[in-house]
Amino acid sequence: MMIHIVNPNTTASMTEKIAAAARATASAGMTVRATQSAMGPVAIEGYYDEAYAIPGMLQRILEAERAGASAHIIACFDDTGLDAARQAVASPVIGIGEAAYHVACLLAGKFSVVTTLPLAIPVIEHNLVRYGLASRCARVRAGGFGVLALEDPASGALERLSAEIEAAKREERAEAIVLGCAGMADLAAALSAKHGLPVIEGVSAAVVLAEGLVKLGLKTSKRGGYAPPPCKPYAGIFAGFAYPG
Amino acid sequence: MMIHIVNPNTTASMTEKIAAAARATASAGMTVRATQSAMGPVAIEGYYDEAYAIPGMLQRILEAERAGASAHIIACFDDTGLDAARQAVASPVIGIGEAAYHVACLLAGKFSVVTTLPLAIPVIEHNLVRYGLASRCARVRAGGFGVLALEDPASGALERLSAEIEAAKREERAEAIVLGCAGMADLAAALSAKHGLPVIEGVSAAVVLAEGLVKLGLKTSKRGGYAPPPCKPYAGIFAGFAYPG
Amino acid sequence: MMIHIVNPNTTASMTEKIAAAARATASAGMTVRATQSAMGPVAIEGYYDEAYAIPGMLQRILEAERAGASAHIIACFDDTGLDAARQAVASPVIGIGEAAYHVACLLAGKFSVVTTLPLAIPVIEHNLVRYGLASRCARVRAGGFGVLALEDPASGALERLSAEIEAAKREERAEAIVLGCAGMADLAAALSAKHGLPVIEGVSAAVVLAEGLVKLGLKTSKRGGYAPPPCKPYAGIFAGFAYPG
Amino acid sequence: MMIHIVNPNTTASMTEKIAAAARATASAGMTVRATQSAMGPVAIEGYYDEAYAIPGMLQRILEAERAGASAHIIACFDDTGLDAARQAVASPVIGIGEAAYHVACLLAGKFSVVTTLPLAIPVIEHNLVRYGLASRCARVRAGGFGVLALEDPASGALERLSAEIEAAKREERAEAIVLGCAGMADLAAALSAKHGLPVIEGVSAAVVLAEGLVKLGLKTSKRGGYAPPPCKPYAGIFAGFAYPG
Amino acid sequence: MMIHIVNPNTTASMTEKIAAAARATASAGMTVRATQSAMGPVAIEGYYDEAYAIPGMLQRILEAERAGASAHIIACFDDTGLDAARQAVASPVIGIGEAAYHVACLLAGKFSVVTTLPLAIPVIEHNLVRYGLASRCARVRAGGFGVLALEDPASGALERLSAEIEAAKREERAEAIVLGCAGMADLAAALSAKHGLPVIEGVSAAVVLAEGLVKLGLKTSKRGGYAPPPCKPYAGIFAGFAYPG
Amino acid sequence: MMIHIVNPNTTASMTEKIAAAARATASAGMTVRATQSAMGPVAIEGYYDEAYAIPGMLQRILEAERAGASAHIIACFDDTGLDAARQAVASPVIGIGEAAYHVACLLAGKFSVVTTLPLAIPVIEHNLVRYGLASRCARVRAGGFGVLALEDPASGALERLSAEIEAAKREERAEAIVLGCAGMADLAAALSAKHGLPVIEGVSAAVVLAEGLVKLGLKTSKRGGYAPPPCKPYAGIFAGFAYPG
Repeated sequence: MMIHIVNPNTTASMTEKIAAAARATASAGMTVRATQSAMGPVAIEGYYDEAYAIPGMLQRILEAERAGASAHIIACFDDTGLDAARQAVASPVIGIGEAAYHVACLLAGKFSVVTTLPLAIPVIEHNLVRYGLASRCARVRAGGFGVLALEDPASGALERLSAEIEAAKREERAEAIVLGCAGMADLAAALSAKHGLPVIEGVSAAVVLAEGLVKLGLKTSKRGGYAPPPCKPYAGIFAGFAYPG
Repeated sequence: MMIHIVNPNTTASMTEKIAAAARATASAGMTVRATQSAMGPVAIEGYYDEAYAIPGMLQRILEAERAGASAHIIACFDDTGLDAARQAVASPVIGIGEAAYHVACLLAGKFSVVTTLPLAIPVIEHNLVRYGLASRCARVRAGGFGVLALEDPASGALERLSAEIEAAKREERAEAIVLGCAGMADLAAALSAKHGLPVIEGVSAAVVLAEGLVKLGLKTSKRGGYAPPPCKPYAGIFAGFAYPG
Repeated sequence: MMIHIVNPNTTASMTEKIAAAARATASAGMTVRATQSAMGPVAIEGYYDEAYAIPGMLQRILEAERAGASAHIIACFDDTGLDAARQAVASPVIGIGEAAYHVACLLAGKFSVVTTLPLAIPVIEHNLVRYGLASRCARVRAGGFGVLALEDPASGALERLSAEIEAAKREERAEAIVLGCAGMADLAAALSAKHGLPVIEGVSAAVVLAEGLVKLGLKTSKRGGYAPPPCKPYAGIFAGFAYPG
Repeated sequence: MMIHIVNPNTTASMTEKIAAAARATASAGMTVRATQSAMGPVAIEGYYDEAYAIPGMLQRILEAERAGASAHIIACFDDTGLDAARQAVASPVIGIGEAAYHVACLLAGKFSVVTTLPLAIPVIEHNLVRYGLASRCARVRAGGFGVLALEDPASGALERLSAEIEAAKREERAEAIVLGCAGMADLAAALSAKHGLPVIEGVSAAVVLAEGLVKLGLKTSKRGGYAPPPCKPYAGIFAGFAYPG
Repeated sequence: MMIHIVNPNTTASMTEKIAAAARATASAGMTVRATQSAMGPVAIEGYYDEAYAIPGMLQRILEAERAGASAHIIACFDDTGLDAARQAVASPVIGIGEAAYHVACLLAGKFSVVTTLPLAIPVIEHNLVRYGLASRCARVRAGGFGVLALEDPASGALERLSAEIEAAKREERAEAIVLGCAGMADLAAALSAKHGLPVIEGVSAAVVLAEGLVKLGLKTSKRGGYAPPPCKPYAGIFAGFAYPG
Repeated sequence: MMIHIVNPNTTASMTEKIAAAARATASAGMTVRATQSAMGPVAIEGYYDEAYAIPGMLQRILEAERAGASAHIIACFDDTGLDAARQAVASPVIGIGEAAYHVACLLAGKFSVVTTLPLAIPVIEHNLVRYGLASRCARVRAGGFGVLALEDPASGALERLSAEIEAAKREERAEAIVLGCAGMADLAAALSAKHGLPVIEGVSAAVVLAEGLVKLGLKTSKRGGYAPPPCKPYAGIFAGFAYPG
């Protein structure tokens, strides 16, 4: 059995980090296939970058489906292209953002999200409203630092992340924290211990949910918005691209 | 590792059926401990029965926690006593109703619930509102038959269940179906094949979610409503009962 | 005519205090029957205590109904067991929490609730969401003191309660205050005078609403979730308990 | 003690009918002062009529307040001018629409409203959204007949009203019915008996709530939107009108 | 082509200011007819003043409709009498409050409103809830000064307005500002430049929307709540008033 | 002054039809620049097609902005790529879907959308929830025919569209209709006349809104989610693509 996790950006080091986190969580008999888009932005910061990240990501998902993937994980906290991916393939597709929210709902009455840049806040709020889970999220916060800063001890990013978690506990009585960035995957356990509440990160959450769906034999509904698109010509640079069905 | 699944009613045959469904889903290394309440109603039909099912169920959960349970599942679609159980123990607790809803959200834009008796509809709607997932549920339907009728081919119950699923597809464009009763656990696969959409049942959904939480090392938040209750005397017949902490 | 007010915990001094508050409000021709549960916790602090308070409380309600009660009041601000009680008897049942919310809605655009311990906040928020009144509640606040502290002038509890009311006026522009604890019944008038806004407490609010329903000749709907439960055996310690119907 | 009930339209026969209904419910020691506007429409059918009904109604409320009214009731199901009236006087003001909704919430999980003309549906829906109670109302229905038709046995209006109640039970599982017109006050008991569910009418509901607020000594909050308007000149035909304060 | 803008209060200087703002925005071929009510308050501060402003305003709208108005604008940020006006005439009617909200929604994810007095906050919040746009409004703020203070440099009102805008950016991450008072029409451009975000004022917003509706040939729906009221006598001082239809 | 309208699909005949509709509405002094994507699907049917339509559309928007566009219109009812486009340029961007919804809100209490294929319903519902306007939309309906069928009198598509409008009036009391497809632009006036209620189509609605924003001098907020993306390399086929800023 194989689970496919796709990094929608084009940075190999992030793909490796994500793959490592996924493999650390995956069950013994489960192969993790980690891919990244062959085209588009090196990082996804907002709606515009998303738009150019999705076409290549969808190609990876079509390829992996043909290669026998039992489920797909989109490893960007914005759940980039999740609806299109669900339309593209029969196997279930999970975004790491939604995975983290659903897991948080099983552990706490309400949670706060802590992400990196303020630019990402509206994107995350949009998703929460759409998923129906806005009432479970007390607040979406941003630490005001870039992802890479987390790996530089001198940047103070980790301190700011901790400060936001403390503020979430104090100001909105957050009962759990969702880490709003794929690059924070390795911090969850330490932050949970330090702050005394569940800290959930999306890559590992998505892996256990994907394995669960596979075990249950469930696939994406093809009634409604996830029905395959009617076959049609694609023009220009997308002319030769793989198409669902 | 052990997962505890508790039947909050006092009927042994239902406990066995639930245990079988849970064990069929559980991973190789996971022991399933199935219990049932030692006191209370033989079936849970509405809020009143729930009230007398919860004390005995909570005792089973405290016992199983002391026996080393890594997670607990409440095997009643009403998620009977879920909040109290989360307050009682450190390990995560999952209701089969919420488990089914969260899984359905990963597979479809909106789902309908089909339960047995109309009496159960408001209880289920109450839970959906409270979980924040009411906007994902198109409608809660009742077939108008009792649980046991499903096991009697002459009762016509199975036909009525199928008719409700067809109505859900036609009338509210349901994209997935959640089976609203623990006694329907063995019907999901056949109904899914027959009706051409995901049909989710809660016992197996809860097992994969519980295993997932255990794998992630996550526990119920003890900040907020699930903090342990301050220790205090209990009077009357509950005087000698086990207490959290 | 008789109204039954039940204290769901097992502490006689609280029952007396509640009875006094109810009798001070009740009309001339109305008898107030005050009872308390014969089993369960001495105080209700969160979901777990609620679970063990409800069975005994329901027995008191069944007894009082047989004794001719025209209406029942549940004297715990969490509206403990309200749905089960409505299923149990034909006469109307009112919780002191919901009573206070509905009265507040007739006097102000939005109100804040001030309760004792932070543990109670999620329970209250849950009720407000469920009742549909969350949009009328600006915020649920906790003073961080226990009920008994209110009776000890040296505890500073009264000062903290006042400070929360001031904060509610300043921070969320609360137009009215709902006191979130049965033990605050005697403070409403003084706090209202001191802070210059309506301060509503649930026991007296419930008494006037209960009398009103009796005068209107209205009873709980038995269509939907409050239909009597189908008769069934109860096992164990609940075997001999009275059952609705 | 005196309660003032004002008919915002200018038809004396309706004022008498409303007064009779109010007096039939009021407690022994409570005087009911029934008034009607001296200007404006003979009936209120929609927003435009409301606009011309409110000025005269507010004058009656100011007069009655000066005459010692302890509370005011607005006897139009649209709760015509309720906010302005609350701003005008210190004593509490209750609309018969909101009174009926709040009483229904104490008796049933969800209710349907049955009114006369389709024109009134959006006005009622607007109020329910604003009060925060839209989630408790299953549907607002119109029988398609005028108020006076109810008093003409040959009109078939009563049959259509009953038919809507039956439809509400069948189609949206309504658990209670709110009668959406002051002119239906005398029908509630018979309809409740016939259809087997609580049928609530606003005039009597408002009387018991008004008496309750008086007994509790509570008045409208003057923080927020109900603070008295800053004194200012009124021009034209309103120049000599009484003004709050 | 003619657009009618009505000042619902009776102060000529405000009508002139509003007319100037409207004419500055109107297209070359569009005549702006500016009127004011002949009766009622000199300023609208809350629900009570609204009640006496509406009758005269509606007369102006009926007159202007007969005079050939293609659209009507209600120049009070509270959207005073908007529903009644829509019922009164066939041409479209726009309130300057709703105009500003809809324009803000086209430019920003969420906006804050800054008005003058705290008394106005609940009125504005009521409208936002009713329009369905409450989720797009981050917060309604009041500067705590009167309209006229804005024209007195020594009053400090402009500084307080700016301070509220800064607070909206900092505290609720407002992306755009809606000025909540017709008297702020001339401040929008300067405030936008100073604070670096869109600042929207309602008079000009309503003019472009009204012109747009005229160009599209669209009129108010007469199905539902805006159907003309059934013709009926009006008593008292309103006896000779013009009536729709 | 120039307004840019972009057809996100690659079919020239549709671009021409859209351009004609836009030019028919645009003011005398306003140039309409109509473009289409150079890459991607020939029609947009669901999320997957959207994903491949957006990159080329964004390039057209960047080009038109450099060419001096004062505003941009996205001529797909799904508002394809609207958020990314707002991030890309300073001038305002309007989707024809949102344009139609906002116009409908100015004319009616609630509206229904009638689109072509059921596949589009969830996409439209998603947008309405996100815009905050779901409460104003009574229902999203699909006629079950393709866009091109509307141009074939023998297809029966026009009859089915009319039948859906009738059903919307009867079943959900729709007060206005929004046509859910750019290809229906030429049908609005005739359908409005036939069915007696406002029928709104998005291309013309977007043109008047875009002209209005230009006249008001307002631009997209760059605080929040529409701030320009931090500059970064794009890999693969997107390497040479224009980038915002």
